[in-house]
Amino acid sequence: MGEFIPRATRFVDLPTPFPMHRGGALHGARIAYETHGEPNAARDNVVLLLTGLSPNAHVAAHPLDPTPGWWEAMVGRGKPVDTDRWHVVCVNSLGSCKGSTGPPSTDPATGEPYRLTFPDLSVEDIADAAAFTVRALGFERVACVIGTSMGGMSALSLLTRHPGLARSHVSISSAVHSLPFSIAIRSLQREAIRADPGWRAGDYADEAYPHQGMLAARKLGMVTYRSAGEWDVRFGRSRMAAEHRPGGDPFGPEFAVEGYLERQAQRFARQFDPNSYLYLSRCMDWFDLGESSGCATAAALARVEVEKALVVGVQTDILFPLRQQRQIADGLGAGRADVQFLALESPEGHDAFLVDTARFSPPLAKFLSEL
Amino acid sequence: MGEFIPRATRFVDLPTPFPMHRGGALHGARIAYETHGEPNAARDNVVLLLTGLSPNAHVAAHPLDPTPGWWEAMVGRGKPVDTDRWHVVCVNSLGSCKGSTGPPSTDPATGEPYRLTFPDLSVEDIADAAAFTVRALGFERVACVIGTSMGGMSALSLLTRHPGLARSHVSISSAVHSLPFSIAIRSLQREAIRADPGWRAGDYADEAYPHQGMLAARKLGMVTYRSAGEWDVRFGRSRMAAEHRPGGDPFGPEFAVEGYLERQAQRFARQFDPNSYLYLSRCMDWFDLGESSGCATAAALARVEVEKALVVGVQTDILFPLRQQRQIADGLGAGRADVQFLALESPEGHDAFLVDTARFSPPLAKFLSEL
Repeated sequence: MGEFIPRATRFVDLPTPFPMHRGGALHGARIAYETHGEPNAARDNVVLLLTGLSPNAHVAAHPLDPTPGWWEAMVGRGKPVDTDRWHVVCVNSLGSCKGSTGPPSTDPATGEPYRLTFPDLSVEDIADAAAFTVRALGFERVACVIGTSMGGMSALSLLTRHPGLARSHVSISSAVHSLPFSIAIRSLQREAIRADPGWRAGDYADEAYPHQGMLAARKLGMVTYRSAGEWDVRFGRSRMAAEHRPGGDPFGPEFAVEGYLERQAQRFARQFDPNSYLYLSRCMDWFDLGESSGCATAAALARVEVEKALVVGVQTDILFPLRQQRQIADGLGAGRADVQFLALESPEGHDAFLVDTARFSPPLAKFLSEL
Repeated sequence: MGEFIPRATRFVDLPTPFPMHRGGALHGARIAYETHGEPNAARDNVVLLLTGLSPNAHVAAHPLDPTPGWWEAMVGRGKPVDTDRWHVVCVNSLGSCKGSTGPPSTDPATGEPYRLTFPDLSVEDIADAAAFTVRALGFERVACVIGTSMGGMSALSLLTRHPGLARSHVSISSAVHSLPFSIAIRSLQREAIRADPGWRAGDYADEAYPHQGMLAARKLGMVTYRSAGEWDVRFGRSRMAAEHRPGGDPFGPEFAVEGYLERQAQRFARQFDPNSYLYLSRCMDWFDLGESSGCATAAALARVEVEKALVVGVQTDILFPLRQQRQIADGLGAGRADVQFLALESPEGHDAFLVDTARFSPPLAKFLSEL
């Protein structure tokens, strides 16, 4: 899995054993992270960034890795997360395959990859590992924890499990728990991977790989990451160029939107470990901030000890719908936090924070500049 | 495929050859239909009902088949489509597997099932076959053609290709063409079936059947037939009863919504021919009323020669969204028709016309009673 790890990635060893929320423990596990900008003398300028399901820790171009990162438009000198001021620590989630320990990692007990012997993964584990990472780097408190999508769940879990660790919070297109629509979509994505004979109950190799299942899972993902309205404008009923249409397949892709899904999926399929995908996907369904906190969701949110929070949602997001963003904002606002809630009109749905720089930059820049 | 045909089904032989819109022709083809109520003396009381992708012609309980039909709440004595007044003719779409000729039917030229040698199927063919059927039954003009979902596409095609055949029209949750979101969903459904090794390029048998693919296709369908909001209320984050959860599968269904999808899919998978599903699904993507009419969509709609039309859409429908219903209403209204447009607030999404009897009955009953 070494080919998945970006060049500027560094590592923190987790304590052994590292107990897992749903049982079991990891031994000799590590967390991959990348940093941008420098810590200041007071060591109080850390912005901790927790990602969605698929990104690695390479959030932006880095002296050791000049390729664009997954949030290139937002992180860097003079950008909304301004690395002239902030020391950005972007953490690759525990369970992922981009450097942090996950199902494709070697189990020291056997010398073989964990695969499905990896213990149940929870958002709580991702949060605990991230909290350990910033502390291991010598920071007792971060100025802000930013979480996007699944990363917002991780951030909320971190805030409730590690009170005092963060001074402020930015939540983008996330949720306190998954609702049935997104559970259904992820269930179908997992089913597509598991139904692929190449999956072999997690025991695939390069020559036997659930390629078709990964393509199907990613395509279904794309359908829910974007919005119908964006696609009406972008693709309409346009057809693919004839030379890109496979011959001899009476049901092969024909419309431009089908070609787009195929290209997006092909880009992803060999870049993400299928077992990691299954574990991360499942932990999003399981996460429930209230359940995790042993109280009602609203009470869990009200207890969060940040001074300020910015909660941003997108009106066209069908995977983490706006009502879930409002729930976070209302819940945090009922506590001690000064909360700003923004409902953006981006047409790009859940993915808007990755592409709609024009709408996302100003509020994020303003919030951080006022910290 | 005989087991798919309801008991009250009757048949009309299509002319031989029956030319197909995209080329080729059928020989010895037939259309399955069911009737409810009696023709009046003037033979002007026919309501022609064109269905969505999956229903058969058994629309309601019948003297020869007392089992409930797919629109039981709406068709019958004293119901909105009142069979004391109307002679209802419900047609099983050409290409389906519920009695009308389709891919599982025997090709008289070979004595073998057509499977993928069935010619390209178009909504235009479904419309032509339905028009032929009512004329073969001795009706030169129907009082109303009702189309639901795909059946609304068939109805619009019939109205433009057979001007004068219908005096009025009810369009429910349909479209003048498919937009990229629904094309993407259907493309993924077809891919799930084709990716199943049991599909064998359409050459499956009882012992090798794309069961998993059909389950996945139906589950994805259900996700788009209902609405996220309905499921929030209906399922929330409830778990399945422990006794229904498969043992030994770390990624098996766990949430109530997953169990619901599984049950719905199991009910469907062996009740619909996979090749028929692929052909019908594809023809919905292809259909484009404007293209079919050789003019702009608006012009095609304005030319429709009905006296009155009722266009009903549902605000939570993500598959045939409300803007597409408004497009039909506006387009028909620009012509000679007196058009009523209704945007219902049903939580059940695209499926609302099948289940939200309370909201659908009054306007449908009123429209028909005023004819």
